[in-house]
Amino acid sequence: MKIIGEKINGTRSRVKKAVAERDAAWIQDLARRQAQAGADWLDVNAGTPPDREPDDLAWLVQTVQEVTDVPLCLDSANAHALAAALPRVQRPPLINSISGEQQRLQDTLPLARAHGCPVIALALDDRGIPGDVAGRLAVVRRVVEQTRQAGLADDQVYVDPLVMALATNTASGQVALDTMRAICAEFPAAHLTSGLSNVSFGLPARSLINQAFLALALAAGLDTAIIDPLDQDLRAMLLAAELVLGRDRHCRSYIRAYRAGRLGRHSQAGQNDQK
Amino acid sequence: MKIIGEKINGTRSRVKKAVAERDAAWIQDLARRQAQAGADWLDVNAGTPPDREPDDLAWLVQTVQEVTDVPLCLDSANAHALAAALPRVQRPPLINSISGEQQRLQDTLPLARAHGCPVIALALDDRGIPGDVAGRLAVVRRVVEQTRQAGLADDQVYVDPLVMALATNTASGQVALDTMRAICAEFPAAHLTSGLSNVSFGLPARSLINQAFLALALAAGLDTAIIDPLDQDLRAMLLAAELVLGRDRHCRSYIRAYRAGRLGRHSQAGQNDQK
Repeated sequence: MKIIGEKINGTRSRVKKAVAERDAAWIQDLARRQAQAGADWLDVNAGTPPDREPDDLAWLVQTVQEVTDVPLCLDSANAHALAAALPRVQRPPLINSISGEQQRLQDTLPLARAHGCPVIALALDDRGIPGDVAGRLAVVRRVVEQTRQAGLADDQVYVDPLVMALATNTASGQVALDTMRAICAEFPAAHLTSGLSNVSFGLPARSLINQAFLALALAAGLDTAIIDPLDQDLRAMLLAAELVLGRDRHCRSYIRAYRAGRLGRHSQAGQNDQK
Repeated sequence: MKIIGEKINGTRSRVKKAVAERDAAWIQDLARRQAQAGADWLDVNAGTPPDREPDDLAWLVQTVQEVTDVPLCLDSANAHALAAALPRVQRPPLINSISGEQQRLQDTLPLARAHGCPVIALALDDRGIPGDVAGRLAVVRRVVEQTRQAGLADDQVYVDPLVMALATNTASGQVALDTMRAICAEFPAAHLTSGLSNVSFGLPARSLINQAFLALALAAGLDTAIIDPLDQDLRAMLLAAELVLGRDRHCRSYIRAYRAGRLGRHSQAGQNDQK
């Protein structure tokens, strides 16, 4: 599983403040810690109004790149912001995101094509997020048709099936998992990505729900998770699920993480060994 | 998910001692605690040599029944022990177990038939445990053919696909999960049960691996887990996985468990709520 570090997101109040105050040191610390924790990309989301976002996103890109080589995931629905950020990016970024919304496709897909960037493609269109698997799959089909027309190979497309809150609809988890399986079956070369934490929105003990969902999503084909790479419980569950699914040769990654103390509370020697 | 409480097992040294010393109070405490934790059956396994086992198993049955109404799961490969225990059982027990081993089938299946008991059926035969899904499924087919001939409906059969240690073969988890899915597809009326903890044998931080496996097994069709019902981390993961899979109406069981402090460390209010 590859990991997109989610923490540099201007919708979080502390990040918003750092962006507004141009607090480079604070942003760089967040970037460095996620990179050290093994993030494969760092999401950057300015979260500011459209007129400020191009400047803010460009600043974020430059600020983060000063301290890490980890590629960026440019997180914006605003083509002007993406256009401002792209020329400053040193390593091919992920563009987060396109969708079946026509305007967004028209504005953003040419940028991805021009800069040779892979894109995250959300399973929603101008009518919203379809409630069922068939509806989401239909949206994804239309989007992939357009990414293909734009010359992007399917392995440059990271489909996000969209995960809704269980608190408002207990079928949300199953719909997301079934959509993942359907996308895997129909577009085997495409990647599958998703933010996880929305699944537990509004419920208590969210980390536990996120862990269960991560294990199940991994089995359903998710190959790129948008998570907090500093969340050791979640990372530990990911390692365990990869082990159970036979994806950890000689159990090496799991044992190495245990010895390095990277399984959080599970790394406390002896705690669980007598069970 | 139904739960078979696994703790009264004579292969555990403390239980072995209690059986040898006829320490009824200690066994009864273990029975009571598992029952209070919500076990649907209590496994009783004397774990003693064949000549002692009939007396010991009968004693365990009587001892446990003095303190709880929870049905028993008579855990023995010894038909003499089962025959000694069955007349003493007050509520229909599960018989744990039969398999494709001919002698065991011939000895035990008539007992299940005579007493109208559901049985656990292991996916192994006289040649051992098949290494792959097809081999295990072939064994299960032959066993189910015989349970049907003996007049047991499929919903009286709890198939155990057998879970081997990841430490010796990293494909073990996937083989067990794939076998579960294959059995569900071919015998939709049969139940699926399994001990979980073997999957993590020989590895560190076993509880974490067991949790990942439990979530994945639930999704693969497991409906009856043989576990320690007092393991709050495992129970918490089970509740979370059931919630994610859309099996917890209005999220009620999960929220109730959280409020009652039954999610272990996850029940500490506020701990994960800000994530």
